[in-house]
Amino acid sequence: MTGTQSFTTAQICTVAATAENIQQRDFLAVEEPLEIRLGITKNGKSNQKAISITMRTPGSDFELAAGFLFTEGILTSSDQITWIRHFGAPIKINGLKNTVVVDLYEGVDVDVTRLERNFYTTSSCGVCGKSSIESLHTGVKHISSNGFTLKRGLIHRLPDILRKSQDVFEQTGGLHASALFDVDGNLEIVREDVGRHNALDKVIGAKFLDGAVPLSDKILLVSGRASFELVQKALMASIPVLAAVGAPSSLAVELAAEFGMTLIGFVRDDRFNIYTGEARVV
Amino acid sequence: MTGTQSFTTAQICTVAATAENIQQRDFLAVEEPLEIRLGITKNGKSNQKAISITMRTPGSDFELAAGFLFTEGILTSSDQITWIRHFGAPIKINGLKNTVVVDLYEGVDVDVTRLERNFYTTSSCGVCGKSSIESLHTGVKHISSNGFTLKRGLIHRLPDILRKSQDVFEQTGGLHASALFDVDGNLEIVREDVGRHNALDKVIGAKFLDGAVPLSDKILLVSGRASFELVQKALMASIPVLAAVGAPSSLAVELAAEFGMTLIGFVRDDRFNIYTGEARVV
Repeated sequence: MTGTQSFTTAQICTVAATAENIQQRDFLAVEEPLEIRLGITKNGKSNQKAISITMRTPGSDFELAAGFLFTEGILTSSDQITWIRHFGAPIKINGLKNTVVVDLYEGVDVDVTRLERNFYTTSSCGVCGKSSIESLHTGVKHISSNGFTLKRGLIHRLPDILRKSQDVFEQTGGLHASALFDVDGNLEIVREDVGRHNALDKVIGAKFLDGAVPLSDKILLVSGRASFELVQKALMASIPVLAAVGAPSSLAVELAAEFGMTLIGFVRDDRFNIYTGEARVV
Repeated sequence: MTGTQSFTTAQICTVAATAENIQQRDFLAVEEPLEIRLGITKNGKSNQKAISITMRTPGSDFELAAGFLFTEGILTSSDQITWIRHFGAPIKINGLKNTVVVDLYEGVDVDVTRLERNFYTTSSCGVCGKSSIESLHTGVKHISSNGFTLKRGLIHRLPDILRKSQDVFEQTGGLHASALFDVDGNLEIVREDVGRHNALDKVIGAKFLDGAVPLSDKILLVSGRASFELVQKALMASIPVLAAVGAPSSLAVELAAEFGMTLIGFVRDDRFNIYTGEARVV
């Protein structure tokens, strides 16, 4: 369903001067626009509908597009997708292809009003808290207490495992990472991006394309802070535990509590705080 | 034009458990939705047009709304605004008012197609790089080499000055900050937010409402990374120098170079890198 992709995630640039007034080279995290389109076929006629433009780090574009469409509640199964492709006449900067089309099988019913609401509610990096919390009740199920537990000691180890697997961050210091672990702390997948929501959409999208959602027995680690938006996306994939290296926001804690997710913050320097769902930590 | 506002930027919560399995209290950065609306009067008839919903930390809502409308190229002068107010029937969570209406004088011409494009291009935390770079040519002037310079030693001092003025970050670790300095390193204004673009919109909005834009002799410091979006907003306000504690992205460097802005990254630990416009640093 997805083809091979080759991208640059870090780019060399010449620093004009450093504090010591020396010219040197540096690596930059690449940031480029990605337009996500849906290819919808009705009565044998195909149309493309532009869904979103996001500033992302190239790489795993197909996973990002699929993950975005899933976590925004637009697609529910990878079986709805015929193929994902880079569009022929893309927005192009630096020779990269920056438009992805997700083609759907004829007859797949997409809720256009939902598209429009999402379109609206994700504008300017945000989502409408209250109305989204309400709309989540229709799209997201409460995470069940299915006996999933993780060990206290494991939580401390997660950031180290993530750090060792991160390529670009070491070079640029400019990327967010999302990583999925199994209950024994084995790293299953890690993705990086200039946008934290993109890194998470790439992780969830990869699993979604493999037909591996819901992710009811996985632990998600994010390199930065835990915002409302990250909790919302993780809930769409039924992830029971979200651990963040940084701080959670007030609304992230509220949302996690409401839907039975375990939310852990400040996982660094041999400490962490469990904000909600502490019963899963043994 | 703006009334008094009282908000909570940090909120106490009980941590269910820490790594040492102790229950304690913690401060969370507050994250709440803000809906920004324009009040447009035509032929004596007023209508409200919803522009954007952003997840923000309450406080300086009027500055945020005004700053957003200015940096997105929708408003050009505070003289276009009759007043800014919290709407009577707001989206309400935790008793906060989460809708702001910016009422315009009758006859003020707002480019609705621009609204729609912005609406679209800021969806999901992003903007369309290429088309925005192109559209910037109409809204933004190249920053002139007007002789504005700053001293190398001053750059090192900026983060310390910012840190001392930040309230909420110390408590929560969860906020981005934007700060404006004069050429001698005097801190003029600092704003915090869970969203980095919001923190910058608050800073620029405060100056915009004072009739103090363009900010051609100011230095902007941001606490995190320098993204395309931050450079774009700073360019709308004609800020000649953007210094970031974190890394810049590739597109941030490209945009700064194209429009003659001085972009400095990694301002921490007695170092920094100048990526563009090094002639302003003496």
